[in-house]
Amino acid sequence: MKESARLSRAENKIVGLVPTMGALHAGHMALVERAKRDCTQVVTSIFVNPTQFGPKEDLAKYPRTFESDATKLESAGVDAIFAPQPADIYPPNFRTYVNVEGLSDRLEGRSRPGHFRGVATVVLKLFEIVQPTYAYFGRKDAQQVRIITQMARDLNLNVEIVICPIVREPDGLALSSRNVYLNPDERKAALVLHRALTAARDELASGTRDALSIQSTIQKTFAAEPLATLDYAELVDADTFEPVTRVSRPCYILLAVHIGKTRLIDNLYLEPSSANPDVFDFHL
Amino acid sequence: MKESARLSRAENKIVGLVPTMGALHAGHMALVERAKRDCTQVVTSIFVNPTQFGPKEDLAKYPRTFESDATKLESAGVDAIFAPQPADIYPPNFRTYVNVEGLSDRLEGRSRPGHFRGVATVVLKLFEIVQPTYAYFGRKDAQQVRIITQMARDLNLNVEIVICPIVREPDGLALSSRNVYLNPDERKAALVLHRALTAARDELASGTRDALSIQSTIQKTFAAEPLATLDYAELVDADTFEPVTRVSRPCYILLAVHIGKTRLIDNLYLEPSSANPDVFDFHL
Repeated sequence: MKESARLSRAENKIVGLVPTMGALHAGHMALVERAKRDCTQVVTSIFVNPTQFGPKEDLAKYPRTFESDATKLESAGVDAIFAPQPADIYPPNFRTYVNVEGLSDRLEGRSRPGHFRGVATVVLKLFEIVQPTYAYFGRKDAQQVRIITQMARDLNLNVEIVICPIVREPDGLALSSRNVYLNPDERKAALVLHRALTAARDELASGTRDALSIQSTIQKTFAAEPLATLDYAELVDADTFEPVTRVSRPCYILLAVHIGKTRLIDNLYLEPSSANPDVFDFHL
Repeated sequence: MKESARLSRAENKIVGLVPTMGALHAGHMALVERAKRDCTQVVTSIFVNPTQFGPKEDLAKYPRTFESDATKLESAGVDAIFAPQPADIYPPNFRTYVNVEGLSDRLEGRSRPGHFRGVATVVLKLFEIVQPTYAYFGRKDAQQVRIITQMARDLNLNVEIVICPIVREPDGLALSSRNVYLNPDERKAALVLHRALTAARDELASGTRDALSIQSTIQKTFAAEPLATLDYAELVDADTFEPVTRVSRPCYILLAVHIGKTRLIDNLYLEPSSANPDVFDFHL
């Protein structure tokens, strides 16, 4: 992969990297399509990164579907698949980690200690190996995207991070490789995330700016869904990921939920409209 | 600097980076000369990196001699000096750090908490900005060199680390920008480091392999020098930097010493001779 990257650089190719853990869905493929539009060479990495899983998490059972992933990527015109083994990425005596301090301790980082240390480290390694001009990430993992953007800025990385919208099922469920864990009842119950976010959006659109009021709406929505257990529902500043009490600048409403044994996340991104800052643009 | 690096890459230049904190002496200049031999473009960075100094260390009084440094580098044929300000390297809200775990906690890392986190982070940033083919470091900072080599391997960095020998004054004192802190009495006392290392070398050459015996020799040498306070004197494996009890593979004897208020380090690197593994080659 490094030799291929070196050649691509020598040929002045515009290289796009789409880092994935495989089990590809339409969300991943939207990243690939965007990369195909921007770049002259598109690389997709498939690597279920052990260092971003906690000891009690689903590393062993995380879906691995390499053959069908490869078929999808080939159809989409990807130029290369980089699919290393764990021992390639973490050889014996591996001990260097990247920490985006502060941003990594809250929300997902609090529920999943060490998660973002693993994410930042593997993403930096993928950048060094593939040497992309652009790298593509989905906004569903909002905090991950924020941390990677911060890392790229802080470490002067020679890559531009491109953030792409969430892709949803027709009924509103955000696409996730973990959706395959859901049984039919849980699949129905999982719609509660989208329902809570749309309720919050409607309340914001009707003029509410108070974070507590919006959180109360979200909590009521979850209370009506017995299969769902809320991990967190937070309204945070889109830059600092610190809680806000009043919505007046770019923000996220972030949800993390257990549906049975499956943990799902989703979010709503909102920013003051450029035409009228009293009105919000919503990205759901 | 990034734009210059981009052009150098496009022109297929072999770029050598010599990272320094300025206050250049013949040890730095030996790195530059080696880089001049290997590379078609040599960049020297001058940056007194605040994140590698502890709160009670000598950041404020560290010697800053930019004009004479620049003159020396120009005479040596360096192509570019990269001399950023702290706010360029650590802009507001900077929060991403690299940790080479384990290796960073011992010896220098124990005496100087956070030191190697600062070193690894700034060196990675310099690599990303300058994008060198080769980067040159002196073996005087043995643990630093080991940590940077580990970081480059673990993070798949696109740079080769070149380690250069210690340069000494005619009387044996290892060159250091901190030697200017020494008054005439301390300057004489500072020779105790070289005296201890040569005594250890002589003992090893005469067949001793027991680490305790060699440490005892070193401690006796220091006991005879009232102006010196030993911080540590350790015989460690050159790969793991863990203490060894018996010398049988590549090792360092590492010294850290206070002479008055000035902290100095020095070391002896020894490895089994390729011709006869019962005999050591010594690098002092």
